[in-house]
Amino acid sequence: MRHVVAAIDIGGTNTKFGLVDRAGKILFQSTLSTRSFPDPIDLVAHLKSIFEKEVQQLDEASILVGIGIGAPNGNYFTGQIEFAPNLLWKGKVPLCSLFAEAMNCPAWLTNDANAAALGELVYGAAKGMKDFLFITLGTGLGSGIVANGELIYGHDGFAGEVGHVLVTPGGRLCGCGRKGCLETYCSATAIVTTYHELKNSKELVDAKIIADRAHAGEREACEAFRLTGETLGLALANSVAYTSPAAIFLFGGLAHAGELLFAPTRRSFEENLLIIYKNKIKILPSGLHEDDAALLGSASLIWQELGRKKKK
Amino acid sequence: MRHVVAAIDIGGTNTKFGLVDRAGKILFQSTLSTRSFPDPIDLVAHLKSIFEKEVQQLDEASILVGIGIGAPNGNYFTGQIEFAPNLLWKGKVPLCSLFAEAMNCPAWLTNDANAAALGELVYGAAKGMKDFLFITLGTGLGSGIVANGELIYGHDGFAGEVGHVLVTPGGRLCGCGRKGCLETYCSATAIVTTYHELKNSKELVDAKIIADRAHAGEREACEAFRLTGETLGLALANSVAYTSPAAIFLFGGLAHAGELLFAPTRRSFEENLLIIYKNKIKILPSGLHEDDAALLGSASLIWQELGRKKKK
Repeated sequence: MRHVVAAIDIGGTNTKFGLVDRAGKILFQSTLSTRSFPDPIDLVAHLKSIFEKEVQQLDEASILVGIGIGAPNGNYFTGQIEFAPNLLWKGKVPLCSLFAEAMNCPAWLTNDANAAALGELVYGAAKGMKDFLFITLGTGLGSGIVANGELIYGHDGFAGEVGHVLVTPGGRLCGCGRKGCLETYCSATAIVTTYHELKNSKELVDAKIIADRAHAGEREACEAFRLTGETLGLALANSVAYTSPAAIFLFGGLAHAGELLFAPTRRSFEENLLIIYKNKIKILPSGLHEDDAALLGSASLIWQELGRKKKK
Repeated sequence: MRHVVAAIDIGGTNTKFGLVDRAGKILFQSTLSTRSFPDPIDLVAHLKSIFEKEVQQLDEASILVGIGIGAPNGNYFTGQIEFAPNLLWKGKVPLCSLFAEAMNCPAWLTNDANAAALGELVYGAAKGMKDFLFITLGTGLGSGIVANGELIYGHDGFAGEVGHVLVTPGGRLCGCGRKGCLETYCSATAIVTTYHELKNSKELVDAKIIADRAHAGEREACEAFRLTGETLGLALANSVAYTSPAAIFLFGGLAHAGELLFAPTRRSFEENLLIIYKNKIKILPSGLHEDDAALLGSASLIWQELGRKKKK
């Protein structure tokens, strides 16, 4: 008998979905436009028919054991997407119960960064680790925290918002409405702002272009990475004082810059660490491939839940 | 059959010890001078003989089920006190195995703030809570974090050092050797520094005297509490972004000041919270009595371990 999971990653623009087995093999995958489904019930019906067809095409020994969903503002405890600013669906959308009823199968939901952290635990470089911090450096800074071998959800399902730690009160305006959040200094978007400030220009660039220019030796591009790493390293050093992880994984667009980002981050991290933490916590690139991470993350949610059930 | 725990709280000056039952009744307690035992083996032998005598004096139905120890730099995973700066015992002291062998009974060890957090969970105001943050405001700022119903130890046993989050890099010199740690601004010691700065004097006062003066309306004393609360509220708001607790408990000398401290802390906390966290996280005084907290905390460690064993 092969257990298979329906994995869904809902984004503001696109929704990825697929079938994943326990070994992390993606047996099928596809994408649709999230905005083509202004009513979530239609999305559920559409995905149900596709998943049913695809599961039938697998060998007879395969059975669908769960539906794992990663979504912005996805709340693990309620199974709802709650007030996601970048989706057409307003208010609270009970996605888990909609999918579970339609497909007669247990469904779990969490936010995309938490799902990716679980993907790192189940399929990535954090296999076997009990305590780590997972950071995505994309449009914003997302995070998932694993401690005692479990993802920390918090009392309300909203734990792990490290991107919204205030690092410079009164600083840069954040999408959340406050000023000085970590993600306004450390993300693929933020490094563009830093670069613009250094060059005193508004030239259309992205993190990739800035990385290319830094590799070519441009002073402002190098400096943008140095400043970003300095702020990130300090923030990560402070993070360690909460859960004392064995490692911190960096994922997403900005992490692709490699040592350009990692070197100043590690330097600032070690400089700012409390002595009992020094020289023992690794800052590492994620072990997940960017293309697969979303589906593997959503799928991991189910393997975690099934594993937990077995333990009980 | 009544299960009883031997609870020990080792401090730089005094060591408290006693027998505690599951309901939190302290059946016997006493204190000794920690510095009278330059060799920890002598302390173990001394306490063993006292505990054995005291257990014999309980009714026949009582049995000793464990030894719970709270100690500075106590490492849960190794069962050792590791490089505690304020103890005569240097290096690593394997206190758990010493006690377990001497008394033929399981022993567990953690640091004093973690033990007190468990005390809050088992006997205090956090009963039944799965996610909370426990803060002690004494000489320094200690902390214990409970998430998913378990104390977070971290990969090395050193999680929960919130007092050493750098809130003002380059700021006040901390005992840890770095500058700008939270505990240099928010603790019973720190408010004296703040008060001295405001008064531009070095008058011999303590947190209690400053509280009395604030109650009497003295401007600088009130201002010292306002500044302390402001910094603490911001730091706690940032803490929420990690584990999203249902409540934050304040314990220890400075917390006795009541609304003088709680009011500015809550105001700054709510002002600085990310919107999804606003108006739902309580900042509360600890439910533990100051005199009993150390022994109840150490005892709780055993009830937690025995409860965990049962679950397995």
